[in-house]
Amino acid sequence: MNIQQVIKKHGLGLLFQQASFGLEKESQRVYQDGSVVTTPHPKCFGNRSYHPYIQTDFAESQLELITPPNKKLEDTLRWLSAIHEVVLRSMAEDEYIFPMSMPAGLPPEDQIKVAQLDNPEDVAYREHLVQSYGKSKQMVSGIHYNFQLDGDLIHTLFRLQNEYRSAVEFQNDLYLKMAKNFLRYQWVLLYFLSATPTVDSNYFRDDSPLKAGQYVRSLRSSQYGYVNAPDIIVSFDSVQQYIDSLEHWVASGRLIAEKEFYSNVRLRGAKKARDLLTSGIQYLEFRLFDLNPFEPCGINLKDAKFIYYFILLMIWLDETADQDEVNSGKQRLADVAFEHPLSQTQYRQEGEALLQQLMVMLQEIGAEQSAVEIVQEKFAQFAEPSRTLCGRLVQAIERAGGYQKLGATLAQQYKADAFKRFYALSAFDNMELSTQALMFDLIQKGIKTEILDENDQFLRLQFGDHIEYVKNGNMTSHDSYISSLIMENKVVTKKVLQKAGFNVPQSVEFTSAEQAVASYALFARRAVVIKPKSTNYGLGITIFQQGVQDRDDFAKAVEIAFREDKEIMVEDYLVGTEYRFFVLGEDTLAVLLRVPANVVGDGEHTVAELVAAKNDHPLRGDGSRTPLKKIALGDIEQLQLKEQSLTVESIPAQGQPVQLRANSNISTGGDSIDMTDEMHPSYKQLAVEITKAMGVAICGVDLIIPDLKQPAQPSLSSWGVIEANFNPMMMMHIFPYVGKSRRVTQNVIKMLFPELK
Amino acid sequence: MNIQQVIKKHGLGLLFQQASFGLEKESQRVYQDGSVVTTPHPKCFGNRSYHPYIQTDFAESQLELITPPNKKLEDTLRWLSAIHEVVLRSMAEDEYIFPMSMPAGLPPEDQIKVAQLDNPEDVAYREHLVQSYGKSKQMVSGIHYNFQLDGDLIHTLFRLQNEYRSAVEFQNDLYLKMAKNFLRYQWVLLYFLSATPTVDSNYFRDDSPLKAGQYVRSLRSSQYGYVNAPDIIVSFDSVQQYIDSLEHWVASGRLIAEKEFYSNVRLRGAKKARDLLTSGIQYLEFRLFDLNPFEPCGINLKDAKFIYYFILLMIWLDETADQDEVNSGKQRLADVAFEHPLSQTQYRQEGEALLQQLMVMLQEIGAEQSAVEIVQEKFAQFAEPSRTLCGRLVQAIERAGGYQKLGATLAQQYKADAFKRFYALSAFDNMELSTQALMFDLIQKGIKTEILDENDQFLRLQFGDHIEYVKNGNMTSHDSYISSLIMENKVVTKKVLQKAGFNVPQSVEFTSAEQAVASYALFARRAVVIKPKSTNYGLGITIFQQGVQDRDDFAKAVEIAFREDKEIMVEDYLVGTEYRFFVLGEDTLAVLLRVPANVVGDGEHTVAELVAAKNDHPLRGDGSRTPLKKIALGDIEQLQLKEQSLTVESIPAQGQPVQLRANSNISTGGDSIDMTDEMHPSYKQLAVEITKAMGVAICGVDLIIPDLKQPAQPSLSSWGVIEANFNPMMMMHIFPYVGKSRRVTQNVIKMLFPELK
Repeated sequence: MNIQQVIKKHGLGLLFQQASFGLEKESQRVYQDGSVVTTPHPKCFGNRSYHPYIQTDFAESQLELITPPNKKLEDTLRWLSAIHEVVLRSMAEDEYIFPMSMPAGLPPEDQIKVAQLDNPEDVAYREHLVQSYGKSKQMVSGIHYNFQLDGDLIHTLFRLQNEYRSAVEFQNDLYLKMAKNFLRYQWVLLYFLSATPTVDSNYFRDDSPLKAGQYVRSLRSSQYGYVNAPDIIVSFDSVQQYIDSLEHWVASGRLIAEKEFYSNVRLRGAKKARDLLTSGIQYLEFRLFDLNPFEPCGINLKDAKFIYYFILLMIWLDETADQDEVNSGKQRLADVAFEHPLSQTQYRQEGEALLQQLMVMLQEIGAEQSAVEIVQEKFAQFAEPSRTLCGRLVQAIERAGGYQKLGATLAQQYKADAFKRFYALSAFDNMELSTQALMFDLIQKGIKTEILDENDQFLRLQFGDHIEYVKNGNMTSHDSYISSLIMENKVVTKKVLQKAGFNVPQSVEFTSAEQAVASYALFARRAVVIKPKSTNYGLGITIFQQGVQDRDDFAKAVEIAFREDKEIMVEDYLVGTEYRFFVLGEDTLAVLLRVPANVVGDGEHTVAELVAAKNDHPLRGDGSRTPLKKIALGDIEQLQLKEQSLTVESIPAQGQPVQLRANSNISTGGDSIDMTDEMHPSYKQLAVEITKAMGVAICGVDLIIPDLKQPAQPSLSSWGVIEANFNPMMMMHIFPYVGKSRRVTQNVIKMLFPELK
Repeated sequence: MNIQQVIKKHGLGLLFQQASFGLEKESQRVYQDGSVVTTPHPKCFGNRSYHPYIQTDFAESQLELITPPNKKLEDTLRWLSAIHEVVLRSMAEDEYIFPMSMPAGLPPEDQIKVAQLDNPEDVAYREHLVQSYGKSKQMVSGIHYNFQLDGDLIHTLFRLQNEYRSAVEFQNDLYLKMAKNFLRYQWVLLYFLSATPTVDSNYFRDDSPLKAGQYVRSLRSSQYGYVNAPDIIVSFDSVQQYIDSLEHWVASGRLIAEKEFYSNVRLRGAKKARDLLTSGIQYLEFRLFDLNPFEPCGINLKDAKFIYYFILLMIWLDETADQDEVNSGKQRLADVAFEHPLSQTQYRQEGEALLQQLMVMLQEIGAEQSAVEIVQEKFAQFAEPSRTLCGRLVQAIERAGGYQKLGATLAQQYKADAFKRFYALSAFDNMELSTQALMFDLIQKGIKTEILDENDQFLRLQFGDHIEYVKNGNMTSHDSYISSLIMENKVVTKKVLQKAGFNVPQSVEFTSAEQAVASYALFARRAVVIKPKSTNYGLGITIFQQGVQDRDDFAKAVEIAFREDKEIMVEDYLVGTEYRFFVLGEDTLAVLLRVPANVVGDGEHTVAELVAAKNDHPLRGDGSRTPLKKIALGDIEQLQLKEQSLTVESIPAQGQPVQLRANSNISTGGDSIDMTDEMHPSYKQLAVEITKAMGVAICGVDLIIPDLKQPAQPSLSSWGVIEANFNPMMMMHIFPYVGKSRRVTQNVIKMLFPELK
């Protein structure tokens, strides 16, 4: 079938562009100087037998980072970025990710350890590769680009043709056309995107094919890269022939297994090639691509898009390459690979003709304008080889004074960048910080994570067959619906806690002073606070800390409160400090003290300067994209200063505490101070029991405690519970202003997946 | 201590008025003519061994209805009313509740069956009573009034005195004072509230103490009522003496058990009297009160309040009656009981003096004005005995032509009233109908129910030690929080259902016609509906029921949709009818078809008249206090008529269907039609599986089905799920417009309390 014509005739341009994309990116862990590490794969990444995101390739030192498939390339790159951030922040302090494909500073062969996977067969396979190819070649890294056509497109094209009876055969031939044309024209991609012009001397040990100072376009794609012996030829003419030739090489012992066939295109969709006959090819894996050292993740969106449209072109083209053409394509690849990066390519004419066809295709299928611009830039790169990736790279190597040096410098820079906003997962920064923290841990531990709704912070988690859903970081199946409803209703919460025997302060509301005073006897001798219902900046509040002893005093306090509001409250007054207990199941994981926005004088700087200095703290920002909020200097803060006879221009004395807010909320610039280890265990146990009474798994319990060192007693003077919060904040515990970080998101994961070791 | 003075001095008036109230009301089940039934206690009321609300007293026919204690008398009466409504609607069709204390139309003694309780001792006790008192006396009914002082009041008074060292002793003496003074002055209450002036001849068999036509104030409180032998005197001088004398009568065999002591005041708070020494008296039970036949529940709020203030007066008084005074009080009671109801009482002077003191007390404690008015009315009743309850009753008996006749008439009226709004629980009509229905079933089955928040429909249920919370009728601990969140998010719901393999219609939104048309290939040959995102009265909608075959047709439909809105949707079109499946756990309990508001012509009446007639249906009302809503005749309905070339004045032909709404919501006047038995079981099973995929216990699943008789097939042409609803409506299934009622609230209870048999 003539796909071009069908797409044009039936207006399938948009459908043609629907696809799925996945990336697998290898890279070496290195020390600061760019030399490959000899340490084992970090334990914090859990078990490689199932990890969907973080694996090892050949060697223990060689990370393989895998994105889930996505319908948008943008999302695939977000995932790649997120996985990188997790890895960079989780690695040992003195380790980095090398940004180039060819390894530099290889250790002696006997110190290169193949990946220590659980399955002995996997280890044996790697040991065999060592025998066949040596260790150095195995240490080369690249990016694999997985591409899947949309199922609807394939079905639609199948319906519109008469040639094939079998849908599987049709699908297989579609992908084979893509594969063969790719092999025929892959040199074009290499010309633009290659980035392995050289390597350090110890890679080839004593036998470098490169003369001193010689650069090529791609060592990795040359015969000196990681390729099969040249006589190992596998046919792509049909799936049947592909299988037959592949099985032949395995049977004859030239390949130890099918996976030892290192084609730049692999047919994917079945564990054994023969199964493709029934299951059909599901997607193609393109393995051509060198790491882009100028990108923290080894690839950028423009290049990924160029590859995408290039792949589409491979089925758009009228002709399908035959085996001879495939072979000549491979030869061109080898030729171009060994060209000097700053020289024009010998095949420029063919390349420009292909770009011309790509331009036509983009036009016909109604591709976005940015795609056209990307191709235009590629035209320019044919004319000016110095603008190609490899052209730019050799210039950078020269400037940096060496390959390894450049790699080490970039590796350090990328790691430092990953720590700039260490509390966030940058690629998902539109989501809540707590969800970002949870996703960080999920990626680290290897729980398959799918974002069901970004705006709604809705995740689907999967480990084996076990599926869980999480919203807003800690809303899960472990909490019952009714418990959340109980906590939403403060009156009901109080009743439930009181019935369960906890110390709950009581409050009564009044709308007339007469009525309030007539109720005096209800409060006589009790420690109470009398306040307007809407408290505004503390006005109208009277506290009888020792118990109200006199009816007239009480009446006076009532009158003062009524000056501020039409409704007042008389509430049990709890003496003490408020602490937030973060409880999960049987444990209080964190205890936090929240201190109202404040600065401490130094006898030199003004309040405004002290605030500005405090606001420089890396955790402070707008409060939604940062764990803490900058202290404002608005009306409320200035009023608060006035109460202390201060202004923003005052210079407080050395050590003088200056309060800028009456309320202790983090959201108004308050400090968060971890007190988990200081708190007497009896209160932690109480918080657990309160959580149980609420019937929830996770709860933020607010207790007022006069002395956190004294064990809890059964009276309201020892402690009182003032709130039980559903879906409690986690960031303030994970990133407190002062004190130890409590990574409670990890406990959420343990709760959801207790089977995870 | 002088309580009056302490209360005045310390301003304890309000605290003095805090109390708890509970009522126990006995009454006979009777036939239409007022004669006592011989049928067993209705099975639907569950097991009397634990039922907190509906019990039997002496005989199988004698209901005992018990309210929970409440801090407001109003609430206690609401509960009494609710329990009555439940009983009246649950009883056999030919049975009623007799509204008078003295039974009429007693069956022969051998047909009166003592209550068949589970515990053989309880039955044996009743058999003993038969021996001691005969069966007739046991059949007399009354109201017991439980009264508890506020704990804070007792503590405060205790703190303000020096006489007592022991708080328990102080509390006991406070209640004893109340008891003794009550026994001294109870005749006053009897004068106002008695209502047993006569009884039918067969009560006394052949030995009536009343002359023909003679009326007295209270047969029940006279020596002919249900009283101990006159020599059985128990001392109230102290708890110790109370126990000693009571134990003496039991030891000597004159009483079979402590509970056979029928004082008009009982000390409560311990199972055995001796335990009161340590536990203290917790509350008093006052047993003096005859049923008020003019009240459906046997008592009204004004009388209940009068009793309340009267009891308070008993501790307010300076003096405490000694045993002699108690005895003279009992004598006065007997005297007044035998006075003619229309005659002035011989003790009027003492009574008026007491009322005078009551007035002073009300003033001093700052009681509400209505209390003062109640007492003023009582003063008038001393002057005019015909205004007393008994005075009014004898006049009514005369008018009705007999005691039994009046009772039977009132019994029928009260039962008819209870059915007027048979779908509601009148006393809790401020709550949602579904919560009312659930409470009805809870009261019927005997699950202890506490309203935690009326506005929030929040209930606390308890059976034994098992506690559950319910909000809005079916939000419970059986649903996980995350499931409710999934269902709140339609996008996430779709994703979850689709991943689980259910037929889910897909939809895509577009903001430009070009973009939509370019996507044509995504929809080619699929049955789709193209519509503006905000559909207004069906404008701009195009349906391709057979699949869209032509790009131009598609483009035209897109254009039409964009005329109505800036955003349009292309959605899979499901052919068929929408049904609501109510699923609970493993079962689809109900299937409902909702039909848009409509009438059917009769060739005679106008549309407006037909609507008015249909709106007369008892289920139709404002839609919040009724299960169905009246059909409106507003703009939308008139537009809908216009589409059918009709107006409200048109007279549709016999059998002509007239549609008044396009949407099928019950809330816009739609009809609800139960289809549970008609629906093919395969769809019911599907709904159960969808519910499981959502991870919930209770779900309202909306399926579109073209043919409810054909088994479900795996394609979207056989069925599609369009919504999964959390907290689904129940009333439309319980009270459908057409078809069988499905009492799903009972299943909610079974789910929460599977241990309930």
